[in-house]
Amino acid sequence: MHDLQFYREAFVSYLNDFTVAKEPDTLYSPINYILQLGGKRLRPVLTLMTAEVFDTDYKKAMDAALSIEVFHNFSLVHDDIMDDAPLRRGKKTVHEKWDINTGILSGDAMLIMAYQLFENYDNSTFKSLAELFSKTALQVCEGQQYDVDFETRNDVKISDYIHMIEYKTAVLIGAAMKMGAIVAKAEESSQNGIYEFGRNLGIAFQLQDDYLDAYGNPETFGKQVGGDIIENKKTYLYLKAIEFAEAESKKALYSLYNSNTEDQISKIETVKQIFDDSGASNATKEAIEEYTNKAFSELNSLDIPESKKDVLRQFGEQLMNRDT
Amino acid sequence: MHDLQFYREAFVSYLNDFTVAKEPDTLYSPINYILQLGGKRLRPVLTLMTAEVFDTDYKKAMDAALSIEVFHNFSLVHDDIMDDAPLRRGKKTVHEKWDINTGILSGDAMLIMAYQLFENYDNSTFKSLAELFSKTALQVCEGQQYDVDFETRNDVKISDYIHMIEYKTAVLIGAAMKMGAIVAKAEESSQNGIYEFGRNLGIAFQLQDDYLDAYGNPETFGKQVGGDIIENKKTYLYLKAIEFAEAESKKALYSLYNSNTEDQISKIETVKQIFDDSGASNATKEAIEEYTNKAFSELNSLDIPESKKDVLRQFGEQLMNRDT
Repeated sequence: MHDLQFYREAFVSYLNDFTVAKEPDTLYSPINYILQLGGKRLRPVLTLMTAEVFDTDYKKAMDAALSIEVFHNFSLVHDDIMDDAPLRRGKKTVHEKWDINTGILSGDAMLIMAYQLFENYDNSTFKSLAELFSKTALQVCEGQQYDVDFETRNDVKISDYIHMIEYKTAVLIGAAMKMGAIVAKAEESSQNGIYEFGRNLGIAFQLQDDYLDAYGNPETFGKQVGGDIIENKKTYLYLKAIEFAEAESKKALYSLYNSNTEDQISKIETVKQIFDDSGASNATKEAIEEYTNKAFSELNSLDIPESKKDVLRQFGEQLMNRDT
Repeated sequence: MHDLQFYREAFVSYLNDFTVAKEPDTLYSPINYILQLGGKRLRPVLTLMTAEVFDTDYKKAMDAALSIEVFHNFSLVHDDIMDDAPLRRGKKTVHEKWDINTGILSGDAMLIMAYQLFENYDNSTFKSLAELFSKTALQVCEGQQYDVDFETRNDVKISDYIHMIEYKTAVLIGAAMKMGAIVAKAEESSQNGIYEFGRNLGIAFQLQDDYLDAYGNPETFGKQVGGDIIENKKTYLYLKAIEFAEAESKKALYSLYNSNTEDQISKIETVKQIFDDSGASNATKEAIEEYTNKAFSELNSLDIPESKKDVLRQFGEQLMNRDT
């Protein structure tokens, strides 16, 4: 097994060979642009790593890894249109640099290209990969739709929220790893075990993202701290506060989340105070730990050498400490 | 073999079973809405018919036929957003009835569902269908992009235009038929022959659509006659007129296509006069005949009984006479 940096560099080099000029340029330039914007390449690295966990050369998993990354970027392009987001990784989003129609059509092409990337695998592997991909991609769409729906719903339960982040974020982490296992032709029980490791880690990761959005270090978090509060996002922290808070604090929270106050700093402070006092912050930390532990317990049950478990455990710990 | 009406009814019944309520409703309702809007169901009927041409029960081709129809409707949903179209088959388009974000996301889900519909086929058939589907779907995206690009380009050649309509429209007709042949496990040469029949017929059909847009019977054409002229669309008629017309007529045509005159009726009349006088109308009729003949000559070379050729020939003739 290699280290994360090795897989990332190998992947980026493969990606560079993939993002060549194609006609019509107006369709393919935006695709190459978003794919070259950078990022941690977390998902494809997981695919490559998992192939090696199951004793298969990471190079064999390269097309599957690229498929996952192309799909992930497809979802970013379309989500950015839906969220009206101007920036992605500090650069203009596709629909800002070009226009909405370009974003729609280039995104569509990426979704198709993601399937094409399985074509070098044998019939049986191809079908397994494509089936997992379709199931996962549809769940990602459903998760995005739930996220949109939740904005205007006032009856969102904690279980609804977990289901939403599971679909929107976590299943793709699980699928990225399972694809490595499929390419390695691992036992079905191993494929499912590694998927569960990734899925639970993905939920923990997203819950941590919610937590850090309010409590993260502004210098290392990468996004504006308090951004979710300003945008009145019903995160795990918010839903737990609504569940736990006294009537008065609950009323204050409702009122703060239904206004767009000028004084954002004071809004963030007041909301965080309610998160703390109600026990929502602690409950969120506990949930993060719970899903991380679930992930590690799935990992422990896997029938692979201890040394390989160590590599994945280390990866999980790095991810949850946000060192990666 | 059955008649068109039989295949259409069998298909619509299968489609009705497919379009059931699913969660989240906000994602799946728009999908069921567009799939239930009606239409001639031309493409799926071709898939079913082709399976029987190659001695296979049309029922086995039902999922492939449905995939083609779901993909076709996906492309309508996204194209209607791009074209800002308010109506589709006399009813509100998805993005009008809901909103643009719903149109984008429901469309994405449909593209994925189209792949899922191949999952009941064996590994080898699954891969053949998915490969053909991906190649075709990407060509449809490229065709759509060329169509958009041509609006602002003044150097579009006849060959560019044919390439655009081939990708945007014709390859899906070819693929619909080839999928029937794949499900029937027909010889590769037969698969390719039937694809070429469909592709050439598709080009002829689209050229005829251009022609009828200017010269069709207002009572039977279904769209506003002269619509392309009003929208300054660079159709085959226009491009041939630019190629053939005398300097003065050419100048008049350029000027008419760069204005949005109030008097649409007179604009349509003047433009059609130039189409006639320059020989563009005749050239278009000749091109329609040329591609129809190519299609029928592909059909004649196929190694299938004469009685089956008759059925397809009849279909082609009905399509080109617009009786269907």
